[in-house]
Amino acid sequence: MKLKVGIINVTGYAGSELARLLYSHPQVELTSVTGRSAVGKKLAEVFPHMIDIKLNITEELGKVDLVFSAMPHKASAEVILPLIKQGVKVVDISADFRLKDAQEYPVWYDFVHPAPELLPEAVYGLPEFYRSKIAAARLVANPGCYPTGALLALAPVVKEGLVYPDIIVDSKSGVSGAGRTLSLTTHYSEATDNVSAYALKGHRHLPEIVQELKALSPGFAPAVTFVPHLVPTARGILSSCYARAKEGKLAKGEAELRKLYKDFYKGEPFVRIVDQPPGTKQTWGSNLCLIYPSLDSRTGKLVIVSCIDNLVKGAAGQAIQNMNIMFSFPEKAGLEVIPLYP
Amino acid sequence: MKLKVGIINVTGYAGSELARLLYSHPQVELTSVTGRSAVGKKLAEVFPHMIDIKLNITEELGKVDLVFSAMPHKASAEVILPLIKQGVKVVDISADFRLKDAQEYPVWYDFVHPAPELLPEAVYGLPEFYRSKIAAARLVANPGCYPTGALLALAPVVKEGLVYPDIIVDSKSGVSGAGRTLSLTTHYSEATDNVSAYALKGHRHLPEIVQELKALSPGFAPAVTFVPHLVPTARGILSSCYARAKEGKLAKGEAELRKLYKDFYKGEPFVRIVDQPPGTKQTWGSNLCLIYPSLDSRTGKLVIVSCIDNLVKGAAGQAIQNMNIMFSFPEKAGLEVIPLYP
Amino acid sequence: MKLKVGIINVTGYAGSELARLLYSHPQVELTSVTGRSAVGKKLAEVFPHMIDIKLNITEELGKVDLVFSAMPHKASAEVILPLIKQGVKVVDISADFRLKDAQEYPVWYDFVHPAPELLPEAVYGLPEFYRSKIAAARLVANPGCYPTGALLALAPVVKEGLVYPDIIVDSKSGVSGAGRTLSLTTHYSEATDNVSAYALKGHRHLPEIVQELKALSPGFAPAVTFVPHLVPTARGILSSCYARAKEGKLAKGEAELRKLYKDFYKGEPFVRIVDQPPGTKQTWGSNLCLIYPSLDSRTGKLVIVSCIDNLVKGAAGQAIQNMNIMFSFPEKAGLEVIPLYP
Amino acid sequence: MKLKVGIINVTGYAGSELARLLYSHPQVELTSVTGRSAVGKKLAEVFPHMIDIKLNITEELGKVDLVFSAMPHKASAEVILPLIKQGVKVVDISADFRLKDAQEYPVWYDFVHPAPELLPEAVYGLPEFYRSKIAAARLVANPGCYPTGALLALAPVVKEGLVYPDIIVDSKSGVSGAGRTLSLTTHYSEATDNVSAYALKGHRHLPEIVQELKALSPGFAPAVTFVPHLVPTARGILSSCYARAKEGKLAKGEAELRKLYKDFYKGEPFVRIVDQPPGTKQTWGSNLCLIYPSLDSRTGKLVIVSCIDNLVKGAAGQAIQNMNIMFSFPEKAGLEVIPLYP
Repeated sequence: MKLKVGIINVTGYAGSELARLLYSHPQVELTSVTGRSAVGKKLAEVFPHMIDIKLNITEELGKVDLVFSAMPHKASAEVILPLIKQGVKVVDISADFRLKDAQEYPVWYDFVHPAPELLPEAVYGLPEFYRSKIAAARLVANPGCYPTGALLALAPVVKEGLVYPDIIVDSKSGVSGAGRTLSLTTHYSEATDNVSAYALKGHRHLPEIVQELKALSPGFAPAVTFVPHLVPTARGILSSCYARAKEGKLAKGEAELRKLYKDFYKGEPFVRIVDQPPGTKQTWGSNLCLIYPSLDSRTGKLVIVSCIDNLVKGAAGQAIQNMNIMFSFPEKAGLEVIPLYP
Repeated sequence: MKLKVGIINVTGYAGSELARLLYSHPQVELTSVTGRSAVGKKLAEVFPHMIDIKLNITEELGKVDLVFSAMPHKASAEVILPLIKQGVKVVDISADFRLKDAQEYPVWYDFVHPAPELLPEAVYGLPEFYRSKIAAARLVANPGCYPTGALLALAPVVKEGLVYPDIIVDSKSGVSGAGRTLSLTTHYSEATDNVSAYALKGHRHLPEIVQELKALSPGFAPAVTFVPHLVPTARGILSSCYARAKEGKLAKGEAELRKLYKDFYKGEPFVRIVDQPPGTKQTWGSNLCLIYPSLDSRTGKLVIVSCIDNLVKGAAGQAIQNMNIMFSFPEKAGLEVIPLYP
Repeated sequence: MKLKVGIINVTGYAGSELARLLYSHPQVELTSVTGRSAVGKKLAEVFPHMIDIKLNITEELGKVDLVFSAMPHKASAEVILPLIKQGVKVVDISADFRLKDAQEYPVWYDFVHPAPELLPEAVYGLPEFYRSKIAAARLVANPGCYPTGALLALAPVVKEGLVYPDIIVDSKSGVSGAGRTLSLTTHYSEATDNVSAYALKGHRHLPEIVQELKALSPGFAPAVTFVPHLVPTARGILSSCYARAKEGKLAKGEAELRKLYKDFYKGEPFVRIVDQPPGTKQTWGSNLCLIYPSLDSRTGKLVIVSCIDNLVKGAAGQAIQNMNIMFSFPEKAGLEVIPLYP
Repeated sequence: MKLKVGIINVTGYAGSELARLLYSHPQVELTSVTGRSAVGKKLAEVFPHMIDIKLNITEELGKVDLVFSAMPHKASAEVILPLIKQGVKVVDISADFRLKDAQEYPVWYDFVHPAPELLPEAVYGLPEFYRSKIAAARLVANPGCYPTGALLALAPVVKEGLVYPDIIVDSKSGVSGAGRTLSLTTHYSEATDNVSAYALKGHRHLPEIVQELKALSPGFAPAVTFVPHLVPTARGILSSCYARAKEGKLAKGEAELRKLYKDFYKGEPFVRIVDQPPGTKQTWGSNLCLIYPSLDSRTGKLVIVSCIDNLVKGAAGQAIQNMNIMFSFPEKAGLEVIPLYP
């Protein structure tokens, strides 16, 4: 008997990527997909690449054991709450249960959280940090795409107390990160051949990064400057993270640094410490996170570069990894594919 | 016991795509990969996206049950001949056994064929045409990327004798079709944002297209003008095929045409007759061939559009499909993935 | 005293390209730009690349000697009619005065033409065909982007009566051709890495191509199949045109063909007959049309390939060329730039 | 009488961009172009987009008043030295005269400088820093592409002593910055859809950035971490520069910061302080440098973003700007074009 799963709001890129990946999952059957803008259509009408998936988009979710919510923030919480009460397990792709402090929601997301009592229970779904909690969770808050890359890059040195709080995360994201909703910024002729920074007044993923860096190292008060950039490619996030090593730490230089990272992520099914600076294309379609830790010996600054596919490890793939952990499936089930290249 | 397979010349894009796809194949183990320019290296050093495939590139092929040759033409025949004699089954990605007439090789490929006696036996590996012969073959000549798309688009109307011999195939290919060997044409800054026609004096895939169209319809003497174009994307071939319907044929118009195509490809695991003009991106990473048959009622001309991923259905995926048929595996084994989108 | 010119609807890509090019025109001053969606804004707010052009977008056109209308069809005719009466010269980028037969408008553009009496007077603004008429015109209908490339490619052989009426025009256009209005088709993540055919039931530029081919050769009844394709680049149209040479014509082959083209376009300021198949990128930002005439000696078919920048020779540049002719400026004034490459 | 200029090594992208831009320069005639790999060819054979420039590539430079050297480093110095002695003015695009300390050449460029006595005389060709010296120079060392963007972004706050020495420059460059020489990194199928960091052990442009930051503020000892990235576009560099404001400085926040930048660059013909985060595409083909200064009020860090076209303000355009200053031409002569967009 396969696990029955559903996707709420399959019509965006996170939703469609979930459907794509779940199709190949050996323990799971995708039985229900919803999407308000496309009720009554076949999934393949909305996404012709899924011509082989025979599913209709409905208004109401069918009976499932687990649901992925790919709704926008605020709407996601509203749709999830009754499901939780019915005993359906939930992986929420939205931000609605990522932040532990309910006060952050009005500040960053412009709404008052409808169920602050659930925030302590919701588990931040970064398996490399919270695997055992995820296994026991009924509600997993899937991390944002930028935080996934940044946190995996920074965790080893922050947890070990090797760096000063001044941290810079300079991220470059493919355009699919902006979703399927139309905008001039993501209009082809405007986005192609264009590189730009955005959200310089503060991106919503910042509080998530800060919260989880603090959680790694009690007493650490990170001062994170996070600047996302849009680059002309559909997929991929490369994050270049900068921090100054504390005096006397990492005295043996890059070799010590690399050993720390290899030890920290030993046995992790999807994190790889690489020998050469990685390219985002090395992760296309896969759940891998590639990390290249380096040390600028001239200035004592650490430069940690990470790459993910924003729609996989940064969204749908990580959600499936979380589901696998919640249901004791092999953690790589449905996620074993080699990246598409070139 | 899994089938042991090898790849000769894994260092090009067809070779690496084979390795990528075979990794997920349930009945097969990739045990040996060769590549002269990279002997002694790990596969992942040459192709970092295959970080999870632990294989060394060797000079000599190990013992295998089937080998894929991704060598360039001429060199491929040379390396294949002794293997055939040893009883190893071969799928040849090169052109060396595609043409039945040995005289064509000096004309199109600048070499005298070293084993013309094998040409009659070699099976042209387009499963939709030659499935049963492939099943019994020891040597399969995997079709070229352009012929795959063009032949699948044209077969139904040619076989049924519905069109005149004047046929135009206008194909648009992604740049990976030109391989991994460096050239100014495929230098990023030159190829990006650029569209161009090439090989206007005759492309090597032309005799292959003509040969197989003739084979479909004895007595038919197609006059094919084939013009390939380079478009700025890594993968994908879209072929727009033009032919004039014979008077009195297809009197019921496009509905009759579409029915013909649906019947012709009924049950085919990878060919889909689509309702809307398809985009190459709907096939990325998959073995699908999407066909959109249409009729220009103003001029009586048929316009048949087909899409494939040139590295999958146009090369590595089709090679695996052939292997599946040769070894009675499920034909879709290892090839069930949904295309990567967006 | 510079000529005062205005642009109606500067907020699309044809409009903005006009503003960009006119800025460098020595005889002209751009004094008025309108655009309903952006009234009150500075031009540089809508198009930041024009930071150095100090103009406000207004609702009403100021007093000018010549106006370019970049309005959508139907709306353009409405706004142009009163201007014509006021004695303002007009170059209309829309299709509203391109077709000589008013009956075509309901068929192809879904509206009844509001001023059919002006159609005979309006001059089709392809200078290579109608230079002297343009010089005397008060209303020039600037050709469509596809017709410009296709007509320049086909004119010499059609005019000389060298080909049969069966003609295929397979065009590949960059995405800017679809304009600045948002759509899923032109959403970055959908359009990048994608190639597709569209408008297979008949594109609006078809009647324009047919009309002008007929005009070149009285009695010639061309049966044109025109299939436009979208390719992933911002700019550029490459058209591959196929026609069969009449028996006994072009007996000396490609040399004769090339001579015909060179003679036909001798002295033309923007048409170049090239020795190698051209790429669209060789025309970026310029008013050039590159033509490569070739002959498939195996089948007797002509393959004529042309390249233009759809926003320049296919729209704004050609409009300026027309203005130059109308006002006896040097025809290349404001259009002498070398294409941007790479 | 126009100034006669030549280009040494016209066959790379800096050289071809010089030829493109000089073609439109009203005071200058390009009379001689050299390029070892293409001696005897027409310029338009090597670069088909320059079909309208009638020049032959020669081995030896003809008689000119000023020469641009686009030779690689080391070779450039060798070819320049005799020219200087002959009284030809030189703008050197290579790095050979940028660094004041001859000891840096073996370290960063692997050669012993052949004419260290000329280093004090050579003027670093950043007009915004050294306009009057350039006016009097016979040898101008044209800045590197990365330093141009980084230095213009950082100069105001460094010169005014507002920031601490810890500076991070995270730059994203289009692929043309890697030149026209073939490599796997710049092979289309590898570079498209790929984002990566490189030169993490130290890029050659670092000493240039450090030297000029020091020159801006005597006693300032900047600790610069510079990480270049490759992004999939032909042109453009976006640099995100991070530095911490000194306590008590910039107390009025971003308004004060923006005023500082506007004042600093007042009257500069090519630097623009923009109101919104800029995109590289806003500079395509132009000599503009767009700067967006911002302040992360949460952490007190400055984030200064700059954009240039690496081949124009980052190479050929700046070289022409330098020539204009050297010969008292209007500084914008030949450089007034509006960027190409979209």
